[in-house]
Amino acid sequence: MNNRRGELFVVTGPSGVGKATVLGRLMKIISNVYISISATTRKPREGEIHGKHYFFMDRNEFEKLIENDRFLEYAEYVGNYYGTPADSVEQMLANGKDVILEIEPQGALKIKEKCPDCTMLFIIPPCFSDLEFRLRSRGTESDEVIAKRLEKAKKEYEYVDKYDYIVVNDDIDKAADEIRCIMLASRYRTEKRKYLMR
Amino acid sequence: MNNRRGELFVVTGPSGVGKATVLGRLMKIISNVYISISATTRKPREGEIHGKHYFFMDRNEFEKLIENDRFLEYAEYVGNYYGTPADSVEQMLANGKDVILEIEPQGALKIKEKCPDCTMLFIIPPCFSDLEFRLRSRGTESDEVIAKRLEKAKKEYEYVDKYDYIVVNDDIDKAADEIRCIMLASRYRTEKRKYLMR
Repeated sequence: MNNRRGELFVVTGPSGVGKATVLGRLMKIISNVYISISATTRKPREGEIHGKHYFFMDRNEFEKLIENDRFLEYAEYVGNYYGTPADSVEQMLANGKDVILEIEPQGALKIKEKCPDCTMLFIIPPCFSDLEFRLRSRGTESDEVIAKRLEKAKKEYEYVDKYDYIVVNDDIDKAADEIRCIMLASRYRTEKRKYLMR
Repeated sequence: MNNRRGELFVVTGPSGVGKATVLGRLMKIISNVYISISATTRKPREGEIHGKHYFFMDRNEFEKLIENDRFLEYAEYVGNYYGTPADSVEQMLANGKDVILEIEPQGALKIKEKCPDCTMLFIIPPCFSDLEFRLRSRGTESDEVIAKRLEKAKKEYEYVDKYDYIVVNDDIDKAADEIRCIMLASRYRTEKRKYLMR
């Protein structure tokens, strides 16, 4: 019998690199993977579904979870909390599912401290100047915001040695395949597959 | 610029597991990989081509290479030498190609001693009894030979902890994909891809 426990993968990268798009593609070509859903105290936007896009909760509820150490990481942005609930992640891992946390780089480094066994993936664009192009083509952010994001990305690049793998997103299918390979290869490790030797 | 050096992968498994077939399939779905060609002193069989199936050489030549430590491993079977030439492997690695050595398990463990950085893959059938079925369905070996091979396979299984990965060959395409994932994931490691962060 395979009583394998799932493995935790943290997928991050600079703002604008296309994390969510790549992971969406990945889910079509891999099985037995759960993408963790964040909790937040901000109000749902139109079309956002509780338990799909976020776990929506009020500040009291969120702060109680903080007190009880029920977040792998959390942060406050513009007056709202965002966090990764430990319980749902733990439950999926116990069920043998690999879990992906899609998270910004600062949160990713916090996760690594709390869960040193996790596998860390950093998605980059084919070249740094491509990042600016992507941010601009969204058309939703001012020059100032874009400049700030690029500045931030530069700093995030400095922590590259904290990551196990670098995934290049020059093509969504290729980037999704890269993540698939990384996750599957891990499942084929001897210590995880010895139970098959019968 | 990518001045990456290739990586050495040793692919082994019990006799009859289908190593060559799986690697043949792998070569259709991966690039930048060289499968090492063994040297031997046995005479070419019909259709065998020097430099494709084997490097054919006479005993003098082979023994000179042994003296000069030009084999990663070698062994003598039924009066003939078989060995893995170090030079062609080294040249491919230096050119940035990943190199696969397809070899029986005893030789694989010798390679690991000589090249501790190599990645070791052990191919197994979906279950041990399947091995007997495969050996029998070849129809070329006597019951006695089959019994000996199975006995040998049992011993080979005991060294499983020497291997980094276990590949299951219940389906050729799936097994080839498993090896592809293992090899590609290794190329995506941060230390190999940092040069892309520009």
